[in-house]
Amino acid sequence: MIMKLAIDKARDTMMKDYGGPFGAVIVKDDKIISVASNTTLKDKDPTAHAEINAIRDACKKLNTYDLKDCILYVTGYPCPMCISAIIWANIKEVYYGTTLKDAAEIGFRDDFIYNFIRNGNTGEVLNISRLDRDECLKLLEEYKNNNKTIY
Amino acid sequence: MIMKLAIDKARDTMMKDYGGPFGAVIVKDDKIISVASNTTLKDKDPTAHAEINAIRDACKKLNTYDLKDCILYVTGYPCPMCISAIIWANIKEVYYGTTLKDAAEIGFRDDFIYNFIRNGNTGEVLNISRLDRDECLKLLEEYKNNNKTIY
Repeated sequence: MIMKLAIDKARDTMMKDYGGPFGAVIVKDDKIISVASNTTLKDKDPTAHAEINAIRDACKKLNTYDLKDCILYVTGYPCPMCISAIIWANIKEVYYGTTLKDAAEIGFRDDFIYNFIRNGNTGEVLNISRLDRDECLKLLEEYKNNNKTIY
Repeated sequence: MIMKLAIDKARDTMMKDYGGPFGAVIVKDDKIISVASNTTLKDKDPTAHAEINAIRDACKKLNTYDLKDCILYVTGYPCPMCISAIIWANIKEVYYGTTLKDAAEIGFRDDFIYNFIRNGNTGEVLNISRLDRDECLKLLEEYKNNNKTIY
């Protein structure tokens, strides 16, 4: 059972206080490419979720930013950061264990962030304002005009 | 103008083919903590957006996973991965330059991923299925029972 690798990794690192109780495995062509877990506390990195760590590690090992033929197994339903990273990485197949509600019940904010994105920003969580659009827009025009890569 | 630091960094690295035309700056107590840009292509890392790079760098420099008193400036409206990372990092104040529509017009998928999250998964983008919930749920129970940190 592939999920067991993710569970064992998560259990090991959560007991060492590396981060939350979440593990992930990336598989390609029936081979295990990466086994990772949440290391937010150890690495002092709020982006070091199990899926992000697994994606970064798999990309390094496969020498690509495109994981289109990979399958991701993760012990908990991905938060919006991770689900977006999965889409950016072109992963198309994901298996998850626990639900967002399960994680919320022990205090994690995954569900809360989904609601933030779905319901729009009321300003209570985040003050986000537009600034210097014209100057920033030039960057996009230059990128397009120079035929740079879209990924 | 703080945004200019983000713009200049983005222009420099996009011209070197390091990644997309996006830059970010993190400020704390009127001091520049981090200036970063998208390095997806150079680092072969789909998570290496300007905001993620800036957050990771600022956390390293400030030796914390909690950026609660920091302000983020970013040349383009954050994608769902980055907006979630901003919330996980407890950043409360963000200034952005271009809109999601501006980025979509040169081919980036930020807007597409927002729609994916808002409209629910129809299976065309991602096949995501539940697996081994009971085993995974034990992790959450163990985490809670061991009074581990919620971040």
